[in-house]
Amino acid sequence: MTLMEFSIIPLDKGAGLSEYVARALTIIDDSGLDYRINPMGTVVEGEWDQLLNLLTKCFRALEKDSERINIQVKFDYRKGVSGAINSKIRSVQEKAGRRLKI
Amino acid sequence: MTLMEFSIIPLDKGAGLSEYVARALTIIDDSGLDYRINPMGTVVEGEWDQLLNLLTKCFRALEKDSERINIQVKFDYRKGVSGAINSKIRSVQEKAGRRLKI
Amino acid sequence: MTLMEFSIIPLDKGAGLSEYVARALTIIDDSGLDYRINPMGTVVEGEWDQLLNLLTKCFRALEKDSERINIQVKFDYRKGVSGAINSKIRSVQEKAGRRLKI
Amino acid sequence: MTLMEFSIIPLDKGAGLSEYVARALTIIDDSGLDYRINPMGTVVEGEWDQLLNLLTKCFRALEKDSERINIQVKFDYRKGVSGAINSKIRSVQEKAGRRLKI
Repeated sequence: MTLMEFSIIPLDKGAGLSEYVARALTIIDDSGLDYRINPMGTVVEGEWDQLLNLLTKCFRALEKDSERINIQVKFDYRKGVSGAINSKIRSVQEKAGRRLKI
Repeated sequence: MTLMEFSIIPLDKGAGLSEYVARALTIIDDSGLDYRINPMGTVVEGEWDQLLNLLTKCFRALEKDSERINIQVKFDYRKGVSGAINSKIRSVQEKAGRRLKI
Repeated sequence: MTLMEFSIIPLDKGAGLSEYVARALTIIDDSGLDYRINPMGTVVEGEWDQLLNLLTKCFRALEKDSERINIQVKFDYRKGVSGAINSKIRSVQEKAGRRLKI
Repeated sequence: MTLMEFSIIPLDKGAGLSEYVARALTIIDDSGLDYRINPMGTVVEGEWDQLLNLLTKCFRALEKDSERINIQVKFDYRKGVSGAINSKIRSVQEKAGRRLKI
């Protein structure tokens, strides 16, 4: 499976963006895929095609009323690994030997 | 149209990656889309679906013999704008009032 | 203040990276700055110079035994705003009108 | 040495950003470091501290009249390698066995 982190920023809406972020997050929450939001983006776990479909839905939802949109995406693909959305955090906490802020 | 910049890094192949980068670049060059390579990634111009199809082809080409792959992608969508792969550079050179290194 | 999200990936260590991630996270946790880890990176809040100093410390800690390192960083600067590491998530949840997965 | 690619986007200036990009590019061009602009960002080669100083100068130049700024940065550090701003492109062209668009 693959982890995808992304953020979508319309550039013609001024400095307050939470309305547009919320629109994308509603789509993500409805997708049924496991995800976590953080202050700089959202991490979703799924198969490659599921993730690109979700990204497309979010883009389409903002494209309809934005002139210019900036999207940043990172993928972390690991063959044969699932549940990484939880296990990566567990694994680094164990290696660090301390409880970290999640 | 949309500009997409991306880089694909297999994490289980050591520090020398040009063979894998070349594999992706051959796919990009064959796609017929306009693109430019730079020392940190490749910028391609196209419609959203064309760009995601190209990204998927590059991912599939590396997935077959990599355990772990990191992909970084940025999109710059501008409604009604095409040819931005050239015009953005022209535009900033004019605004800067000098010739910049391309 | 500024939010910085970053991830540091040594490219010559194979597919298992949690030991190196843990080394950086220990430095972040010791810094006294507020932070949150997520499955794809770490978000830290601070003044610009504090954030770049922290990034440098993490880089130096991995540089000493890595041949090649890839670092990805995003900054979100908002004039006159502090506590964004918490308030951004609150704000999008309110706008979405539902509880989202953190 | 290290390659740094970055883009700086003020979020409160609307969809036309070339004036702000040009302001940063003038600083980069004056820095004396080797760089290349591309349609999605600028790649600069230098030592770690030189690169962070340059990034700070560009941030300060936009911070003075922006409420909110998004910055995206990637670093590619290779121990003992210099001139990568040219050699990376040469190397992938050789591996691809064809002339690619720069």
